[in-house]
Amino acid sequence: MLQSIDARTGQPYGEPWPESTPAQIDAAVAQAATAADAFAATSAAERAALLRALADAVQAARAELVPLADRETGLGLPRLEGELDRTTFQLRGFADVLEAGGAHPFLDEDTVAGAPPAGRPRMTRVRIPLGPVAMFSASNFPFAFSVLGGDTASALAAGCPVVVKAHPAHPGLSRQVAAIASKVVAAQGLPEGVFRFVEGGSIEVGVHLVQAPAIAAAAFTGSFKGGVALAKIAGERPRPIPFYGELGSINPLVALPAALEKDSASLAQSLAGSICLGSGQFCTSPGVIVVWKDAGGDAFVADLAAKLQALAPHAMLTGGIRGAFDRGIAAWRGHGQLTVLVDDAEASAAGTPRPFLAEVQAGDFIADHRLHEEVFGSAALVVRVGSADEVVALLKAIGGTLTATLWGVPAGVELPDEGTLGIVRAATQVAGRVLFSGVPTGVAVTAAQHHGGPYPSTTAPFTTSVGYAAMERFLRPLALQDAPGWLVAREGVPV
Amino acid sequence: MLQSIDARTGQPYGEPWPESTPAQIDAAVAQAATAADAFAATSAAERAALLRALADAVQAARAELVPLADRETGLGLPRLEGELDRTTFQLRGFADVLEAGGAHPFLDEDTVAGAPPAGRPRMTRVRIPLGPVAMFSASNFPFAFSVLGGDTASALAAGCPVVVKAHPAHPGLSRQVAAIASKVVAAQGLPEGVFRFVEGGSIEVGVHLVQAPAIAAAAFTGSFKGGVALAKIAGERPRPIPFYGELGSINPLVALPAALEKDSASLAQSLAGSICLGSGQFCTSPGVIVVWKDAGGDAFVADLAAKLQALAPHAMLTGGIRGAFDRGIAAWRGHGQLTVLVDDAEASAAGTPRPFLAEVQAGDFIADHRLHEEVFGSAALVVRVGSADEVVALLKAIGGTLTATLWGVPAGVELPDEGTLGIVRAATQVAGRVLFSGVPTGVAVTAAQHHGGPYPSTTAPFTTSVGYAAMERFLRPLALQDAPGWLVAREGVPV
Repeated sequence: MLQSIDARTGQPYGEPWPESTPAQIDAAVAQAATAADAFAATSAAERAALLRALADAVQAARAELVPLADRETGLGLPRLEGELDRTTFQLRGFADVLEAGGAHPFLDEDTVAGAPPAGRPRMTRVRIPLGPVAMFSASNFPFAFSVLGGDTASALAAGCPVVVKAHPAHPGLSRQVAAIASKVVAAQGLPEGVFRFVEGGSIEVGVHLVQAPAIAAAAFTGSFKGGVALAKIAGERPRPIPFYGELGSINPLVALPAALEKDSASLAQSLAGSICLGSGQFCTSPGVIVVWKDAGGDAFVADLAAKLQALAPHAMLTGGIRGAFDRGIAAWRGHGQLTVLVDDAEASAAGTPRPFLAEVQAGDFIADHRLHEEVFGSAALVVRVGSADEVVALLKAIGGTLTATLWGVPAGVELPDEGTLGIVRAATQVAGRVLFSGVPTGVAVTAAQHHGGPYPSTTAPFTTSVGYAAMERFLRPLALQDAPGWLVAREGVPV
Repeated sequence: MLQSIDARTGQPYGEPWPESTPAQIDAAVAQAATAADAFAATSAAERAALLRALADAVQAARAELVPLADRETGLGLPRLEGELDRTTFQLRGFADVLEAGGAHPFLDEDTVAGAPPAGRPRMTRVRIPLGPVAMFSASNFPFAFSVLGGDTASALAAGCPVVVKAHPAHPGLSRQVAAIASKVVAAQGLPEGVFRFVEGGSIEVGVHLVQAPAIAAAAFTGSFKGGVALAKIAGERPRPIPFYGELGSINPLVALPAALEKDSASLAQSLAGSICLGSGQFCTSPGVIVVWKDAGGDAFVADLAAKLQALAPHAMLTGGIRGAFDRGIAAWRGHGQLTVLVDDAEASAAGTPRPFLAEVQAGDFIADHRLHEEVFGSAALVVRVGSADEVVALLKAIGGTLTATLWGVPAGVELPDEGTLGIVRAATQVAGRVLFSGVPTGVAVTAAQHHGGPYPSTTAPFTTSVGYAAMERFLRPLALQDAPGWLVAREGVPV
């Protein structure tokens, strides 16, 4: 059963309702499959109009949607207003990209006379939509990574119908947004299968959806455990399908001594804020803070601890997420090599969590794989290092991560020293995004964005789930050899 | 043990030698890993120079290499001369692409002032090499898909060291080409780990290579069974890696009645030649010929059978490949719903195989999944259809294929009828390359090429193993946020 729960009180409200049955999921997928050819053949302008109409409809329902989201998630009105803005911004952004031809790259090479290998027929490279996409909503972004979030926007932009699975942490909001989406699809004169919606809290609903034969790809934002399990199922189908799983990461942040010499206090404030933002419920939340073993480092760590201590994260999204956070920090509390710096367990017991910070030496951190696992929430480890080489070893031990942040790398045109270069090199090798200022929370929606990263941060490191390149996940390249004039004239739009 | 075998006589010659030990494979991978950072940081011009020097060295050794290849593969001198040309052509082609900036796409977006979602930091999108690539050579292209073939060329172009596993069907040639490659790498002043070579006929060698922790990706051209097994191993590593498997396919060719009205005789000749080319040992060999049940179709099939009967394929690559071919056509001979059209089993017994052709009705073909499996060699099935809808159903039943060829689709600017449109649409959905004239054997090396296709023709349908987009398999996107001036100045070249 699905049930709205007030995130702040943990109390259910309203009536529960049943999750989608296997037959309902099959019907949704069948409708999406039926719509796939016609939707693939729509023009970029038609799909841009759909995306703009979806953005307008979400915007028009703002006064109704934001309070609903707030009650189910506890994320607070300002954050949710901003997240709704982001959602409409990216729907419209994909529309802009479509209108600029982004969905239909088209490389047309004329015949070359003569014998092979130089001589060849006319070759035309295009990309075609994969077909129906299963889209798994995230708990922590009820708008921007949910029913009409980036995955849905990018799949629709690509010309693929979507079957969205709602996240059970905000089931009432999901239904409302889905109803809006269906209404817009109908108003645009598109088949209803272009947008379908299923819901459920049990594992079976997601498994059934991924296993549905007509599903051509799946996009997922969520836990490592859930994502890896679904990726395996996607790979073991009779016809395996791409599984784009964004699984989160621990997002190392390296504070080079040079950075702390200048801005220690403001950096500590900014970092404490990033750790507590949204109660730490971001896949980009900084979980590992790398600080030199020197006086500047000592002062920064003390300052960070004091500033973190003063912050009060809000209620977490669900009791389950809160439980996992409490278990994660309990394990850290009991870890023999960690020195706890911030921990207010008693205050934490009263409804909202408290931030947690502990310190560990680089060698101990590197050697213990358990410390490389994400604790989802307002918690971080300070790792003290003695050299650039140790930072490189630490980054390589962490492996794949969505982001790595480096503070204090010289910003000008002159090359930094070898040690710093090595840190930059290692960061580019393990992360999907490397930041040279600011904090990793907050992911800009733009063409140059890459919100991805090597395993285990994602199951598909070549792809991004934020920004306009996200569309490429759903468009497969295809070569046409000696294509007829009418087909070339379509400039990559499928027939 | 490895052993050169004369493909035409089946007799071994020269001394056998041991395959690479696990320790030797580990050492090769370790050298590649050691070389990875320096090689990634080379300029495009340096890597272009390497590729051109490799092409020159292969060209210079032509008189020695081609006869060696001919004895081990039986493919014949003209074909092997052409294949060597193709190999040097694509090495130089990747050099051209490097010099034009193709390895370092670089999208630099300036800061946008203001609050998010519109406001954002400077974002720079680049691509970085993955690291050491395991490259599995193919049996059927001793030059172009082997030691210095397309996979190696594209990985080197991307800035990834390669560890090549030779194919045991041409072990002597592979050693010679590997020795040339190592000499060129040294002469270019690059670390020897940029090109490493392992060899072996046992499954263990390949498994050990794919499981080596420092290997970052694998490229494979070969059988469905072998490729799927290695893909599974790649996905089950503690750190899963991309596995680019090109597994072959049955390459349906649809002869619309309009095509046969005009050119029946020359099309039959061309198709018979394609079926027998290289003894049918191409992943693009046409295995399913779709012909209407009408008088034109009857005449074409009779003509095709007569022309095929007159052709004599040369010896196959190995006894194992020949055995699999014989078993495949034996199963077809015993299949109750096939009518054998060409089958000269007695002549076949004498050293070289004979072509095989049988006919089946569309309904029977669609219903029997065993008939959708590739028989590697000069063998094809003619499937008789009564309607465009039946062709669509047939294409969908086959599923993923490297190529689909459609003869008789109107070439002009006017749209064809709905039935033909449906066939074109279905072909684009199941194939990686759709041809509108000619035969599928022969794959042009060019930017617009896509030699890939949905599962089961490949394990990675978004990628190509022929043409310059092959390089993208080894370059992972990365976003730099507020990157320093010195890093932006590198324009995407790794540090």
